[in-house]
Amino acid sequence: MSLKDRAPEAKAASIQLGAASARTKDTALAAIADALSAAKDRIIHANQADLDAAARDNLAAPLLKRLKFQADKIKEAVDGIRSVIALTDPVGVTMRAMELDAGLELFKVSCPIGVIGIVFESRPDALVQISSLCLKSGNAVMMKGGSEAAHTNRVLADIIDQAAVEAGIPKGWLTLLEARSDVAEMLSMDKFIDLIIPRGSNAFVRYIMDNTHIPVLGHADGICHVYIDRLADLDMAVGICVDSKCQYVAVCNAAETILVHKAIAEKILPKLKVALESKGVEIRGCDATRAIIDVNPATEADWGTEYLDLIVSVKIVDSLDAAISHINTHGSRHTDAIVTEDKGRGFRFMDYVDSADVFQNCSTRFADGFRFGLGAEVGISTNKIHARGPVGLEGLMIYKWRIVGNGHLVADYAGPHAKAFTHRTLDKKFRN
Amino acid sequence: MSLKDRAPEAKAASIQLGAASARTKDTALAAIADALSAAKDRIIHANQADLDAAARDNLAAPLLKRLKFQADKIKEAVDGIRSVIALTDPVGVTMRAMELDAGLELFKVSCPIGVIGIVFESRPDALVQISSLCLKSGNAVMMKGGSEAAHTNRVLADIIDQAAVEAGIPKGWLTLLEARSDVAEMLSMDKFIDLIIPRGSNAFVRYIMDNTHIPVLGHADGICHVYIDRLADLDMAVGICVDSKCQYVAVCNAAETILVHKAIAEKILPKLKVALESKGVEIRGCDATRAIIDVNPATEADWGTEYLDLIVSVKIVDSLDAAISHINTHGSRHTDAIVTEDKGRGFRFMDYVDSADVFQNCSTRFADGFRFGLGAEVGISTNKIHARGPVGLEGLMIYKWRIVGNGHLVADYAGPHAKAFTHRTLDKKFRN
Repeated sequence: MSLKDRAPEAKAASIQLGAASARTKDTALAAIADALSAAKDRIIHANQADLDAAARDNLAAPLLKRLKFQADKIKEAVDGIRSVIALTDPVGVTMRAMELDAGLELFKVSCPIGVIGIVFESRPDALVQISSLCLKSGNAVMMKGGSEAAHTNRVLADIIDQAAVEAGIPKGWLTLLEARSDVAEMLSMDKFIDLIIPRGSNAFVRYIMDNTHIPVLGHADGICHVYIDRLADLDMAVGICVDSKCQYVAVCNAAETILVHKAIAEKILPKLKVALESKGVEIRGCDATRAIIDVNPATEADWGTEYLDLIVSVKIVDSLDAAISHINTHGSRHTDAIVTEDKGRGFRFMDYVDSADVFQNCSTRFADGFRFGLGAEVGISTNKIHARGPVGLEGLMIYKWRIVGNGHLVADYAGPHAKAFTHRTLDKKFRN
Repeated sequence: MSLKDRAPEAKAASIQLGAASARTKDTALAAIADALSAAKDRIIHANQADLDAAARDNLAAPLLKRLKFQADKIKEAVDGIRSVIALTDPVGVTMRAMELDAGLELFKVSCPIGVIGIVFESRPDALVQISSLCLKSGNAVMMKGGSEAAHTNRVLADIIDQAAVEAGIPKGWLTLLEARSDVAEMLSMDKFIDLIIPRGSNAFVRYIMDNTHIPVLGHADGICHVYIDRLADLDMAVGICVDSKCQYVAVCNAAETILVHKAIAEKILPKLKVALESKGVEIRGCDATRAIIDVNPATEADWGTEYLDLIVSVKIVDSLDAAISHINTHGSRHTDAIVTEDKGRGFRFMDYVDSADVFQNCSTRFADGFRFGLGAEVGISTNKIHARGPVGLEGLMIYKWRIVGNGHLVADYAGPHAKAFTHRTLDKKFRN
């Protein structure tokens, strides 16, 4: 069946799934978890076929690592599904209730977005995680995974789809796309797909963003900063820089640039150099930095580079406002932190830095859905609308406005004898 | 100054404006209202120049009417600004507060989106309304109006910009674009413009949507339905159809198609014909409809047509589910109503119709920000993300995640001796 036929099927399934009860969805999720556990050997076998092919094609080690989906990863994925079951049903929540006039009541009620398009590179765990979050939130899902993981993805999608449909979820709720040409076609299907979530490298996400009119939830770059204020605690600042840079270098919320107030530079830079170099970090400094510590020079390009590696750029700034301006110019609106003992300067930083996450006195690495207590992470977004920063299930939700009246007409609220609206907030839920 | 220079200026102004206090913004809005009132003659004079040119160019009457911005419209616009002042400041609202661990607190705090791009056709009142809503919500605004209203728009923008800047709003917060080529350039400036709001005809909005990667808040079509269920009250159904179709035909929330359950068709269609024809409405019916009442035939194209005129299509359906399916196939996800005395059938309609507004027993014409009590209307959106249906000030808002810590590092929450997060909801506001 071609994508042209499957997209309307996904849309139709999304309408049914959007009205499914919490119990139906949770039962289906439990069935999926059980089915994945029971099919462990089949999954491992399929994944081994992908791993063997990847080894023959000399895939790079990090890619191989992400592709690997064996017993431990299967268990993690199943545990992940069980934690999704434990979340409150996000559908049908009354967000606002108002009497417009006697007998005319307005309710703003949460509902799923519709059809979510997922495009991901090699990690098969993304398939399990996102499809279970979509099911929980009542969204249909169309997915295209990387060709390196074709065997694993096919088996996972089959198991998940079959278990869900047998548990009463409408057929067509999950579609796995396999042809390379499907991606471009998918990106053009704004009539059927309501939101695209890409999971992969910067270049990959940027390609998706630049090639579709469908809204995209995600982030291309993570150029995060730590700014050490003149009123910083020195030891705290060094600790936060090391954690932000080194705790896990290959992720979007790792710091790439450290900004240092000129008044504290001479005191902190030597300590910072020792601490970072002991972790194997290469420092690239501006001229003023290099006048204090002996490090490689930074070029203009460094301020806009996401290293994702044991490299950090360091720049001395004249003021808090210069730091803010640097971040707003060179950053990627992801996560930026200030280290200062002064509350007012901390607030100023948070008010003026235009990023999803603005922190005072903690590591940039805290920018994460699980650490934020969101319960589940759909992704991290640098969008300025809908959802920003770490996004939980609410990123897959929207709402409808429901009115129940009793024959009310707008003509009665117009003209010289117009009735007035009461616009009285109600403490009331919309219930079926 | 070219658009390439002005867009970064708008972005820089947005950072400053985003941190402006409620008092500064409200003072500026009051200054704008006063300045517009004081400059009444200048505005009327400029508008007369546009009207004269339009008359020479034989502009159609509805366009002329929308272009007209004389004493009454100026007063309305000024009253509108005063009502915007009365709204609560939407910036800085704590939406969520959570202790992640002792001394590590997370706050989700509302903030402006950044730079809003407005593209509108002839109505100068849109310029006043949207620029005051942007100022209130702390957003910078770049606007391109129709060339027919060039004189009026120039005078309005000058007055509004000058009054605001004199009252302490950062220079560059408002940009009026005047060259035709500016529109295409604006639509490509996703680095500087965060959201586009188009105000104009369907074709105009669709052009905008199809030609930018910037998110667009709006709606192209308004193909709204009234479905008369087999359990409808006959008189109520006729009243709602007449109001939905005729109360104001040229607007997006007017009904274009009436669906009738077959079991009630013979009883209601003759009454409906009398009522609609007495208002001058042309009825176009399906074959089954025409077997009962003598009306013009509807073709397949009628089900997807927004007449914006005294024309309505009528179709007999076999069931509630057939009505839902027709709406989801042919509608525009705007506003659809059911008339039924049965609560369960009303709920089913609301659950399964995939539209921004789903109503039971009232006119589709209620779909409007003022009637909904939103206080101000940014527009009506058929988007599936961010904001849906009538959109108030919240459509111009997003949020940042703010964390205040005390030297907290992620490394302490990883590995064999990992500290645990407390994830305790706080009843606390983030305050500067």
